[in-house]
Amino acid sequence: MNDIGVIGLGVMGKNIALNMLSRGYKVSGFNRTFKVTKDLIDKNIENFSGYEKIEDFVSSLKSPRKIFLMVPAGNPVDETIEVLVKLLEKGDIIMDGGNSYFEDTNRRFEYLNKFGINYFGVGVSGGEEGALKGPSIMPSGDKDSYHHIGKILEDISAKKEGQPCCSYIGPKGSGHYVKMVHNGIEYADMQLLAETYLLLKYVCRYSNKEIANILDDWNNGEVQSYLVEITSKVLKEKDSLTENDLVDVILDVAGNKGTGRWTSIEALKQEFNASLLTAAYQARIMSNNLNLRKEFNGVIDSKNNMDLSVETIHKAYSLAKSIAFAQGFGLYNDASKKYEWNLNLKEIASIFRAGCIIQAKLLQEIMDCYDNGANELLAYPTFKNKVIENNKSLKDVVISGLSSNLALPVYTSALVYLTQLSSDLLGANLIQGQRDYFGAHTYQRVDREGFEHHDWSNNE
Amino acid sequence: MNDIGVIGLGVMGKNIALNMLSRGYKVSGFNRTFKVTKDLIDKNIENFSGYEKIEDFVSSLKSPRKIFLMVPAGNPVDETIEVLVKLLEKGDIIMDGGNSYFEDTNRRFEYLNKFGINYFGVGVSGGEEGALKGPSIMPSGDKDSYHHIGKILEDISAKKEGQPCCSYIGPKGSGHYVKMVHNGIEYADMQLLAETYLLLKYVCRYSNKEIANILDDWNNGEVQSYLVEITSKVLKEKDSLTENDLVDVILDVAGNKGTGRWTSIEALKQEFNASLLTAAYQARIMSNNLNLRKEFNGVIDSKNNMDLSVETIHKAYSLAKSIAFAQGFGLYNDASKKYEWNLNLKEIASIFRAGCIIQAKLLQEIMDCYDNGANELLAYPTFKNKVIENNKSLKDVVISGLSSNLALPVYTSALVYLTQLSSDLLGANLIQGQRDYFGAHTYQRVDREGFEHHDWSNNE
Repeated sequence: MNDIGVIGLGVMGKNIALNMLSRGYKVSGFNRTFKVTKDLIDKNIENFSGYEKIEDFVSSLKSPRKIFLMVPAGNPVDETIEVLVKLLEKGDIIMDGGNSYFEDTNRRFEYLNKFGINYFGVGVSGGEEGALKGPSIMPSGDKDSYHHIGKILEDISAKKEGQPCCSYIGPKGSGHYVKMVHNGIEYADMQLLAETYLLLKYVCRYSNKEIANILDDWNNGEVQSYLVEITSKVLKEKDSLTENDLVDVILDVAGNKGTGRWTSIEALKQEFNASLLTAAYQARIMSNNLNLRKEFNGVIDSKNNMDLSVETIHKAYSLAKSIAFAQGFGLYNDASKKYEWNLNLKEIASIFRAGCIIQAKLLQEIMDCYDNGANELLAYPTFKNKVIENNKSLKDVVISGLSSNLALPVYTSALVYLTQLSSDLLGANLIQGQRDYFGAHTYQRVDREGFEHHDWSNNE
Repeated sequence: MNDIGVIGLGVMGKNIALNMLSRGYKVSGFNRTFKVTKDLIDKNIENFSGYEKIEDFVSSLKSPRKIFLMVPAGNPVDETIEVLVKLLEKGDIIMDGGNSYFEDTNRRFEYLNKFGINYFGVGVSGGEEGALKGPSIMPSGDKDSYHHIGKILEDISAKKEGQPCCSYIGPKGSGHYVKMVHNGIEYADMQLLAETYLLLKYVCRYSNKEIANILDDWNNGEVQSYLVEITSKVLKEKDSLTENDLVDVILDVAGNKGTGRWTSIEALKQEFNASLLTAAYQARIMSNNLNLRKEFNGVIDSKNNMDLSVETIHKAYSLAKSIAFAQGFGLYNDASKKYEWNLNLKEIASIFRAGCIIQAKLLQEIMDCYDNGANELLAYPTFKNKVIENNKSLKDVVISGLSSNLALPVYTSALVYLTQLSSDLLGANLIQGQRDYFGAHTYQRVDREGFEHHDWSNNE
């Protein structure tokens, strides 16, 4: 009998299975198209058994059966569940390791609960390589059943200072929620690095190679991260078809798989302002707006009024990235209250430290903040001091960039966010006056409690 | 027998009923709490009949019965429908005049269709006064049944140059969608006026009275609108409890009823960038973030580097407002294709010209663009010339504002949007390189068709 089964043996599923095998687990594999399973069987990997029939796959597993789904998010997950529900027994466990929408995971959890089947939403980050060598893993579901799967998930996860980058997240779909926002933060940091590249290229006039070297240098300091590291690698890469750097032959149009969009939508639903994450998603949309881009190319006068030092950009990046992470963790904090998930924010920061795309030195700072009782990250001294020390650099970067007509949506959002937080007046008083005028929506006063409606009729 | 029935006799419902009565229609009224109906009965208004029992209310109506719901959006609409479905006959008509979510209206349309009842989602804009004197009305549902209700809706609507501000919008929930985005545009324009007030107050150092006079002056020109007009009125208003201007005693915290949030969410779902509308909603959220605002109040250094003339701000406002409307109408265009609604964008601009909150001279320009075959408004000469002529003013406003630490989220979004449209390079090439590196997501090349995956392994 095998320890665990994996359904869906595409690149990610195959790598998860190989990861499990490498830790000594006996693994059963199943794929809708048998050829994919067959290819793996033909490799004669010790402890791996592949099956053509799902009944045989299910029968091959130790009780309680543990099945890890790596099928595409959406209908394929529901279809697979419908097949499995007829074959499994009470107490068996299904884990969904895909990028499922957390509300779908909530729904599936409730549905399978009726059959006594334990359903876990399992956020997995780390791409193909992470899946194989050790990803960051965010499992959620019934806490009392977690011990059945905890060891294996922790064994296959990345390790940071000996600690597994896997930890029980919370009930129902909370693991997929945490993965979703992880990706939202990822979008923001990727976009900030893209904007940093534009600044270093167009304002400082560095070559791709020089920019890569600057990023390598930064990566020895406080902004160290996997994304900084690979951005440098991307910038150094040569095209195999031309003499050019690869980055210069890649089309300036960004794709997306939806999780950044979902994060922005959920933030709005929660009435939480995750403006940097939203601006990063919107930037990807804009890159696809080829008709209008062609129409307006070069239409706006650009004239650079101000030089920027590399250190100014470095400080601005450090601050903007910190604000993006603070907004992401603010979303966790807010969702934890709204959905009563009791999320452990320090633990979440901890499991992001290795294996996943947003692994960064900053996460250790975030852990320290929560250790010391931080609630709002940005208000905690570590972050607040960065705001105080680096806001001038951020402002210089944004003003210089806008002057030269560079598109810096996330840097700009970071600066706007700080102006919103630090301003005496946002003009919301005037908006409340307008709303009361045309819709009798009432307003509060500065000098007393309660809501007031003004009689505007004298003004007619 | 009466011509039409109104259910829900709160301020808006009562005013709609009074509006119908003023046009000579015989109106039946019903309210869940009879006292509200009784108050209206006691006024002995000619042609009005109020009922305590809904059965009597339904029996009082001519066939096919026409019932106008003015109950709060959400469950009350479904509850009322459940009661009515038992009392109505095939061919009867229910209209929902509330701010219902358009997907709910889609669902209710399909549900009532099974019973042969015609359901219309009816967007209504104009606030209390509009409801009474003539609102802008956006009805959607079965086109072939529209003739039953078209006359009365057009009769009670606002008129612009003799034309009713009411027109059949499209199938199912499209009328509520159009109303929703109307409100999203409204949020953006209100926020732009709030930011204009901040600029005139803090950069130009004008008093509330002087700002009101400037807006009165602007209102004689191209930016003429209802919102400019009432903003001036709000700024001139005196507080009745203190010696202050009213605007100075209103708390700087904005409320919202959800339609601006919905618009932002739908834009994201459509993968359409309505950044000015989203920034306006996020600005309302930020005004409520009192903990962080207190923590950061005055933390950022502000130093104004640049004076602004009133005319510079005027030009920037004209351009930013045009971009907000272009994004809103872009959403209509996009939704019309995605949902196959066949929306008539010129008609929509036309019915916004009177009665509603966003009525503005700009809508005539928009009609002219569509008359002349415009597809993307911003690319049409009327709008494109504004971009060419006013972008320098917009840039001056944003840079001056950010320098002085003013929060100008929507002005800034407008400038960022233009930089995104006019830039040669957005850095999406680098993002595609990152995505291919960590997730094998592939990228396109500048020099050939198709998607490529690079072998990054040499780089390890």
